[in-house]
This record gives sequence, C-alpha cells and structure tokens, in this order.
Amino acid sequence: MTAKRQIHLGLFLQGAGHHVSGWRHPNAEAGSENFDLLRRVAQEAEKAKFDMIFLADGLTSGVDAHPSMIARFEPLTLLSALAMVTERIGLAATASTTYGEPYHLARAFSSIDHLSHGRAAWNIVTTSYARTANNFSKSHPEHDERYAVAQEFVDVVRGLWDSWDDDAFPKNKESGVYADPNKVHVLDHVGKYFSVKGPLNIPRSPQGHPVLIQAGSSGPGQDLAARTADIVFTAQQSLGEAQAFYKSLKERVAKFGRNPNGVAVMPGFLPVVGRTLAEASEKLIELDKWTDVVGALPLLEERLGHSLSGYDLDGPLPDLPISDQLRSRAELLTALARRENLTIRQLALRVAAGRGHHMIIGTAEDIANRMQEWFENGAADGFNVMPPYFPGGLEEFNAQVVPILQERGLYRRDYVGTTLRDHLGLTRPNLPA
Amino acid sequence: MTAKRQIHLGLFLQGAGHHVSGWRHPNAEAGSENFDLLRRVAQEAEKAKFDMIFLADGLTSGVDAHPSMIARFEPLTLLSALAMVTERIGLAATASTTYGEPYHLARAFSSIDHLSHGRAAWNIVTTSYARTANNFSKSHPEHDERYAVAQEFVDVVRGLWDSWDDDAFPKNKESGVYADPNKVHVLDHVGKYFSVKGPLNIPRSPQGHPVLIQAGSSGPGQDLAARTADIVFTAQQSLGEAQAFYKSLKERVAKFGRNPNGVAVMPGFLPVVGRTLAEASEKLIELDKWTDVVGALPLLEERLGHSLSGYDLDGPLPDLPISDQLRSRAELLTALARRENLTIRQLALRVAAGRGHHMIIGTAEDIANRMQEWFENGAADGFNVMPPYFPGGLEEFNAQVVPILQERGLYRRDYVGTTLRDHLGLTRPNLPA
Repeated sequence: MTAKRQIHLGLFLQGAGHHVSGWRHPNAEAGSENFDLLRRVAQEAEKAKFDMIFLADGLTSGVDAHPSMIARFEPLTLLSALAMVTERIGLAATASTTYGEPYHLARAFSSIDHLSHGRAAWNIVTTSYARTANNFSKSHPEHDERYAVAQEFVDVVRGLWDSWDDDAFPKNKESGVYADPNKVHVLDHVGKYFSVKGPLNIPRSPQGHPVLIQAGSSGPGQDLAARTADIVFTAQQSLGEAQAFYKSLKERVAKFGRNPNGVAVMPGFLPVVGRTLAEASEKLIELDKWTDVVGALPLLEERLGHSLSGYDLDGPLPDLPISDQLRSRAELLTALARRENLTIRQLALRVAAGRGHHMIIGTAEDIANRMQEWFENGAADGFNVMPPYFPGGLEEFNAQVVPILQERGLYRRDYVGTTLRDHLGLTRPNLPA
Repeated sequence: MTAKRQIHLGLFLQGAGHHVSGWRHPNAEAGSENFDLLRRVAQEAEKAKFDMIFLADGLTSGVDAHPSMIARFEPLTLLSALAMVTERIGLAATASTTYGEPYHLARAFSSIDHLSHGRAAWNIVTTSYARTANNFSKSHPEHDERYAVAQEFVDVVRGLWDSWDDDAFPKNKESGVYADPNKVHVLDHVGKYFSVKGPLNIPRSPQGHPVLIQAGSSGPGQDLAARTADIVFTAQQSLGEAQAFYKSLKERVAKFGRNPNGVAVMPGFLPVVGRTLAEASEKLIELDKWTDVVGALPLLEERLGHSLSGYDLDGPLPDLPISDQLRSRAELLTALARRENLTIRQLALRVAAGRGHHMIIGTAEDIANRMQEWFENGAADGFNVMPPYFPGGLEEFNAQVVPILQERGLYRRDYVGTTLRDHLGLTRPNLPA
C-alpha cells in the first residue's frame, strides 16, 4: 500500500517475558494465565501500529521450563479472544504439523480469520523436542521426515482453505439456495502422509488464506519457508549471519518461482532499553543476577540436546555431536559460544536472556540504529520484538524506540488497510483456476 | 445455590436455525459465518439467564447437509470469542473423542475456562458418520470401540486437568519460585488407546474441571454419561420415552456411585411459538412449505444409514436393518414413524424441522405447560432450547415463554453465582488425594 519499503514489527508475546527472570522485574506482571495482562499488551502493540502479535507454543510442560513456557493459554483460543479486544493488529499463533491434523488446523485458523475480519496468521512449525511424543501416544519422527510431513500438511491446509468460492453462499431466501453446489471444490488429497477429502466446513476466509509464517532455519526448514511462507521468523546473532541467511532465503524463494519481495524476513530481536547505555546494561545485569544458572542450565541442555553435567561451568563449551533433531538451534548456540569465547555459564545466561535471539542493549537511539542497519543492509524486512518483561519492556520500546523509527520514515504512523495482508503489502490469493 | 429445584436452560446455537428452512424466515439472519448474529443471540440468551449456550459440531461438509452444518465456525475458537462478549452465561462446545487428541482438547477447554472465568463445558461425543474418516487419514472405528476410546479419552482429559494444584504457581518475585515443584502431578497414563504422560501446560482452571456434557443415548453412551457427565443432552419424542430414559440414566448414575441429582438430564426441545395455536401451526406450515422434501431426504437417509431411493415418498417407512454405527438415532426415528404412522415424506419433514428432537407447537402457555410437565414428572431437569430460526425464534421464546416459567417459580430471575458450575448447583471437584 505504501510505496516506500518499511520495517514490519511483530510482538512476540510471552506472559512471563522473554528473559527467564523477566517476570521478577518490578515492571513485570507474571504471567501464565493472566489474560488481563495479555489483553493490555496486545492493545499496547496495536497502539504502536505493530503488524502483528505472535504467540509461540509448545506441547509439553515441566517446572524446569522457561517460566513463559511452563504454563500458558492454548494459542488458538487465546488468539480468538484477543481478536475481540483489538481491531487492526494481526494475530499469529504457532501450531505444530507434527502433532496436529490438517482438517482441524485449517478450520481453526479460518475461523479466527473470520472472527478477526482478516487478521489471522499461522506460524507453521515442526515439533523438535522428542519428549512431546509422550503426550500424544506415538513416536517422534526424525527431522527430515518432520519436514516432509510439514510440506504435505501445509499443502492440504491450503487446499482446504480453497474449498469454497468466495461467493459460494448466496443464502437467497427467495430461491432457497443456501450454498451453490457449483462453487464447492472437493480436495480429494491422497498423499504419503495424509488422505483428506474435504471440503472444509467453513466459508473461504476474509484473507483467502490466513498469512503463513515459518520458523525453521535448517535446509528443509528454509525450503518449506521458501515454498509457502509470507513471513520467515528466524534467530540470527550478528549482522553477517543475518545477511547470509536473508540472501540464502530470498534465493530459495526465487527458485520456487515466487517473488522474494513477497516474503518478509523477521529475525527475533530482544531490546533492553535504557536512557543511557550504562542504565540499559545495569538492567540486564539485574535480570541476570536473578537468574539461577543451575536452573537455567536445562534450557541450554534442551537446545543442545546434551547434558552438560560434569563440565566446569566456567570452562568452555565442550565439542558435542550435533543432534539431528535440533540441528539449527544447536549450531547457532555453538557458533555463538565459539565466536565470543563464552563459558558454559555465560552461554547459559545468554540462553536464559534471549534463547539465541539477537539482543541489543542500549539507548533507544542505539536500538533504532541497529534496526535500521539490519533493515537497510539486506539482513531483515522487520523484527519480532521480544521484550524481556511485560508490560514494562514493551511500554519502554513503544515510548522510546518507535517514535525514532517513525521520524526516520522507517515505520508506519498508522495502519492503512484492515487485514494483516494489508499491513504486509500482500495480495489476497486467488482460487486456483 | 437455590433450595428449590429449577429448570436449567441451554440454548442450542446454530447459525442458520434448527429448522432446515429456518434461515428463509423473515425474522432470520443466516448464518454460517455471521459472528455478529451469534454474538447478539448469545447476549440475548444471557439476558434471559440461560445456564449456557451450546454449540454442536461436525467434521465434514457438503451442499446436501443441513444449512446450519454446511459451514460454521470452529466451535472452540467461537466459544473463546463469545467468552469476551458475555459475562455470566455458560459456554459449551462439542468436540469429538474419535478424531481428536486428549492433550489438545484438555488444553483448549482449560484455556476457555480460564478466559471465561469458569464458564466452559465440553460436550463429549463420538463421531457417528463413517465418512468423517475421509478427512482424517484413518479408518472409522465401530460403535462400541468408539465408546471404549471415549471412556479412556475422558479419563485422560480429567487427569490432565488435575496436573497442577490450585496454588502451584506462587510466582514469588522475592524467592524466585514461579512454579512449585511439589505441586505438579505427572499423569503417566498408559492405556489401551492412549499414552499420555503430562503434565498439562496450563494451570488448573477456575472450575477445576470444565463441565462435562454427554449426548449419546445408546447403552455405551449412557454408561459414559453415567460415569462422567454433569449434563446429559438427549433426544426424546414423548413424555413416556423421556421418563424411561431419565429413570434409566439416573439409575446408571447411582450404579457408578454418583449422586443422581448431580447430573442434569436436558432433552432437546424445539418450540414454535404463536399468539394462538393456529398462528403457531401456520408458522410451522410455512417453514415446511419452504422445505424441499427431496432436498431434506438426505438428512433422513443419513440418520437411518440407508438410501430410501425407490420407495414411495407417500408410503410408510420400510423395515430397514438398523446400522450399528447409528443405533440410537435410527431407532428413535423408526419408533416415531411407527407410533405416529408417518409416511416417508412426513418423517423427512420432521427430521428437517427438528432432527428427532421434541417439537412443541403452540402458545407460550402451552409451551411452558409442556416444560413444566416434563420437569415435574421425572422426564427432564431442563431443556436444550432449539429455536427454529435466529434471532427471531429465540426472541419470541424469551419474551413470551421465559416470563411464565419465572412467574411459576420454575426458572431463575437472575444468576446467583458466576461459573457454569454455580448455575448448575455443582461443586468444584477436588484434586484426588
């Protein structure tokens, strides 16, 4: 809608904050079942004209987990509730293709797209943690098979979303025609992993297809993104790494015959804002001080797929074979430890703070500069903002960083359209001829 | 909460109305993706102090289906949205144990119970129509196996709901204790159909357990209800049949060691209200006149599990073997046809009007009398009200029938408590010791 390319912003919404100790900050209101907090935060993000809020997910729990992940709302029901208390902001939720059914997911996201008048997005993930299988009466598939399942899953969902023409329901009281029998398309999908006949039992939704987000960074993950995604969510630690990923991803998009400008790459981005650099650093030191490294160790071990017991916390990260299941995550953290020469303790604190996402500590000016640098140098089309604590961390970002981006013409002052596709500059997909 | 036994009311909410031609009525606003209509109807039911609204469901679609079932919102996302625009009314949705996963369903209903501050209910069903399997990459289980699966499914869900003590999340900023490791209960369920370790990733919900509704009337269905349900939804055509079902069900409840008064039997109930009996009859004749019997025939055939092609529409229902899959539904309709000596055409019209539920045509007084008769003579503890069209059909019921029930002291004038359990007079379940 706007001629000039602008930064897209997602708010990564986690009840207890992104920093593992964020919930202990004086300006934090934990957390897990606090809908009133989530409602205010979503409204605050809408006031700052974010493209979307973004809900992560997981299908296990335990007291060892990150506080934002021990307990949380089921994302689709939460999204639906947030649709009622917001008007313009996009609404994205994560749902796994490893432990779900395409018919159920196609329906639920279409339903949210209807309820929100065209603001729904699905973050397509495969489930990496094998222990999830314990909650679903089956065994956990290997990495590459998970992505093969995901590809087919997404194809089925998109096919189901095209079950009905946009004008398939005349509901004509005179003629008695409720649904037009010539405007229904039976999918009749029979594939390697799924057999789904259709049609879906809900009309085509306002966006045609809810927006698709993809968050896997392995080769198969990038292929899935390049083939299907409108937004790519990724974890990148440095400008160089982010540029390499951006280039590789956009090339893959072109290889699949799609327009690289139609896919927004949005790395995670954890801002720690202070009036001075010293104040921002002090804030992080305080958060880290509250972090029990022994308690944070399981978060690191989980991402590496290995126990670190027996190793010196103040020694270097040992050479560990990289688990196939956790490939991109483990590689990212290992590279980070090597590059910055981090001890196990330091790496555990980094994971506790940002789980491998890019953290920037500084003044609002510093943070805006870094965003502009990545945006203008082929590293990002936008960011998934991850405040360390809620609601304070978002309020600070909105009050201090957003106005700078707006003054520089890098970010919208108001919404132009009404749907998430409008915010992203994406057209509504036509039905296949 | 009230000393005197009172009628419980559910509103069976179908976008296009219960009568197959209801959507063509001048006071109808079809329907399928009309959230604004559903919102107003839910608020109207709350104004009339209904215990709950009730959403049916199905996992297939086709232009031959009942207009309320060709296309509709996914019930859990819809319920969540309705939770935001209502304050006291209970919120019940149907979800199948045949094509779902206990971990997903336990989460979603717990989430809605949190979002609604204790108003969620799950209508437990098994999926009877074998064609549903075509949308879920698997084969359809037989009737008795479906109920065996359902029993275990419900046990797992209830176990997951008890994953955390009510005070398991101190979230103490001083001590740093977010979740208390002594207050989590790992389920470790290993059964014939499901292996689910737990814990669930959401705190115990306001009602402890969302209210359980069961709607199968076969022997295994009644056993499932007697063992687990707080509400039994059933289709009963006459006072005598309803009394027999009520007695049988309450006896089964006692056999399972539960208090029969803790389970509310609520038959479906389709009111056609007029200022005079003639006006009400005229209204039904008009609705039936809009009904294309040939178009309605598939609804009857689906419920009987047999084609009727080749039979004289104006002749009697032939003797057909009763399909195991559809046992209780097919038996009910066959008995109705025999008792009232209905032709195939007449039976098809009945199904088109009320799908086998008790229909009463008359003045508000007639309708209130029938409700009182069933309520006071061991046939019902309440009713699932099924207006033939929306919003007009509900508005008439609320304006004309509800005040009579209130004047007679048979029905509340206002809510006393805040949760659905409060409305039903049910206590909150304790965690198992």
